[in-house]
Amino acid sequence: MHVAQPLPSGPSPPRPPRVSSSHLLTQWGLARLARAFRGVPVRLELWDGSYADFSTAESVATVRVRDRATLLNLTMRPAVAFGEAYAAGRIVVDGDLVPMLVAVNQALAARPYPGRPPREGRITPARARHNVHAHYDIGNDFYRLWLDETMAYTCAYFTDPEATLERAQQAKLEYVCRKLQLRPGDHVIEAGCGWGALALHMARTHGVTVSAYNVSASQLAFARAEAVRAGLADRVTFVNDDYRAIAGRADAFVSIGMLEHVGREQYPELGRAIDRVLDPARGRGLLHFIGRDAPMPFNAWIAEYIFPGAYAPALSEVLSGVLEPCGLSVFDVENLRPHYARTLTHWLDRFEARADRVQKMFDEAFVRTWRLYLASAAACFLSGSLQLFQVTFGRPADDSRPWTRDVLYRRRADGSL
Amino acid sequence: MHVAQPLPSGPSPPRPPRVSSSHLLTQWGLARLARAFRGVPVRLELWDGSYADFSTAESVATVRVRDRATLLNLTMRPAVAFGEAYAAGRIVVDGDLVPMLVAVNQALAARPYPGRPPREGRITPARARHNVHAHYDIGNDFYRLWLDETMAYTCAYFTDPEATLERAQQAKLEYVCRKLQLRPGDHVIEAGCGWGALALHMARTHGVTVSAYNVSASQLAFARAEAVRAGLADRVTFVNDDYRAIAGRADAFVSIGMLEHVGREQYPELGRAIDRVLDPARGRGLLHFIGRDAPMPFNAWIAEYIFPGAYAPALSEVLSGVLEPCGLSVFDVENLRPHYARTLTHWLDRFEARADRVQKMFDEAFVRTWRLYLASAAACFLSGSLQLFQVTFGRPADDSRPWTRDVLYRRRADGSL
Repeated sequence: MHVAQPLPSGPSPPRPPRVSSSHLLTQWGLARLARAFRGVPVRLELWDGSYADFSTAESVATVRVRDRATLLNLTMRPAVAFGEAYAAGRIVVDGDLVPMLVAVNQALAARPYPGRPPREGRITPARARHNVHAHYDIGNDFYRLWLDETMAYTCAYFTDPEATLERAQQAKLEYVCRKLQLRPGDHVIEAGCGWGALALHMARTHGVTVSAYNVSASQLAFARAEAVRAGLADRVTFVNDDYRAIAGRADAFVSIGMLEHVGREQYPELGRAIDRVLDPARGRGLLHFIGRDAPMPFNAWIAEYIFPGAYAPALSEVLSGVLEPCGLSVFDVENLRPHYARTLTHWLDRFEARADRVQKMFDEAFVRTWRLYLASAAACFLSGSLQLFQVTFGRPADDSRPWTRDVLYRRRADGSL
Repeated sequence: MHVAQPLPSGPSPPRPPRVSSSHLLTQWGLARLARAFRGVPVRLELWDGSYADFSTAESVATVRVRDRATLLNLTMRPAVAFGEAYAAGRIVVDGDLVPMLVAVNQALAARPYPGRPPREGRITPARARHNVHAHYDIGNDFYRLWLDETMAYTCAYFTDPEATLERAQQAKLEYVCRKLQLRPGDHVIEAGCGWGALALHMARTHGVTVSAYNVSASQLAFARAEAVRAGLADRVTFVNDDYRAIAGRADAFVSIGMLEHVGREQYPELGRAIDRVLDPARGRGLLHFIGRDAPMPFNAWIAEYIFPGAYAPALSEVLSGVLEPCGLSVFDVENLRPHYARTLTHWLDRFEARADRVQKMFDEAFVRTWRLYLASAAACFLSGSLQLFQVTFGRPADDSRPWTRDVLYRRRADGSL
């Protein structure tokens, strides 16, 4: 999953914007936005030809606003209003979306978020199911249009930055297995298994058995069919249940791109579930998630239209919330931010190439919403306002792990992992 | 620096200990210790032949207590009383210290520390100088007796677990340089440089200039003499000042084994100092420190007799205290716990081999105090009650770092880094 940088709402030091408009309310709105987005190299242009330049630098794009209601909405809830108006075509962007959003992020990066972001509230198993349904059950055919063959919908791992998306996703699957030190006969519990690519790869390539949990009916149907097709149905069990219901005893626990949906209030519950199933001697695990360099609220538009209930945590929030309360030990943390920027650029390109088919499946507003979502997520990873963490952990005194990390980087003859 | 696991003070479920003694106060003391250390495979034996077995398992050692005052002190402040009495010879251990302390740690590991450990209070620059003087200015000749040739007094990196200590320390120096992506011409600021091994290695091997800060007069005198001897005095400047006074502009910041002395209240000050000097585009840094899997108080005896003002933080405390407030991005975290257990085993062996010379320099109580300190630190890393973290960090959008971590693991023809 992917999120976008929140837009600012507070005031910043006033500076006379380059504004031209004869209407007082319009002038006020333009001036207010010019203050909030001061320094962003974007021109805002209105229905009547009036405009504001947010920076003295050359603009990377022109944002055209079609009517006064949209302008005034932008002054009130910029993130949500921008997304809604962009989807409805009441805002049009002349220029590339991604560089524009990168410029917005970079200009705003110098303004740290004050205090702690508000809590999201409790996410019950029923709520979790609702949230997941809203995004992942849109339709397997839709995702198949622009994801690669693996149907992996999380950050890939580019051992070579020019690798194809599919090869980078395969490398990610293998890289995760190595970090988990899988051995034939191990039992693995996966929480949030998507369309099943990792579970099937683990069973096929590493001789393990897997219990893979998910609450998306569409993804589970797809994954189960794949398991049968691959002859792995006896090794991989896809379970329609919440991460809180994981059971049994596992040599390894893995969760790729689920933590963003868990919610901070539930972090200790997730930790207890992991601690409960992990082998007490050498059980180890991996959490792969979108995070931030410091706690910050989740983008309101993304939370409303793309990922209800989502949150991108700071690393410290995951450690103090999930792992520390049950005494699990962090072995390794890797930040793969540039890899997610690359992954998202691939997805956005592939989505654009199939946009007409998406429009036939849904409508133009859907296409524009998803374009903005993928572009803003790419911009967030390019500008560093989002990070991608892989945290490997295990029991505090586990001496079964390799002496050094060299083993993660052995290559096959063809250069692949 | 190294620390030991706190001994427990609270009660645990009562169970009839195997106690034999006719004196009521002695019976009470034995019973109380047997409850506190229930499950630890140790026999406590008293001056009158009475004893308590803390576990039904076979004892790994017998702790002989010489008098009733010592026994009663143990019931009140176990960590401090044990260390003081051991140093004074009022407690004698029959059996190996390290396995005994490992067994203590393992038995107590299942009892999590409730709540948050108390704050240590402010450590001013004057206080920091005092704390450092108390440990690191004991005498270069003393440390030279049992450290290896590099005089590195922090966790080594064993690319081969059978490597010599010196080779593992050399590997650590090189490994840190790789994590910092040093390039010829870079300027590096080091905070807490010990006897200068890393600063000189960086200048000699990577063509960088270094400003290395320390407040230990003995260490600085040694380091400056080494710089002159190595012909590097024009490339490496050893500065007698606090980490808060670091100045200039650095391509890289590094601190090995200093954070344990900084104190939690000063973490944001350390973060601001790093942020101030680091290049805003591609400045990167590395913090190497002893930590824990969850916040826990520092051992009271170590704090009183070995490392005044020290604290071993949880990773989350370092992230939320040092790095997050100034928006620095975590690139990589590695836990080298087994390497510190190995390093400490080397140090303890070398210390024992020179114990008679140490006794001539100081006295028997000093030898016993340092033996207990090194043994308990080894036990903490063996049992997982202490961890060793290397955290690599930098600017959130830095794209100059390598695409993968492969580059950290390239070997020379002789197998070394």
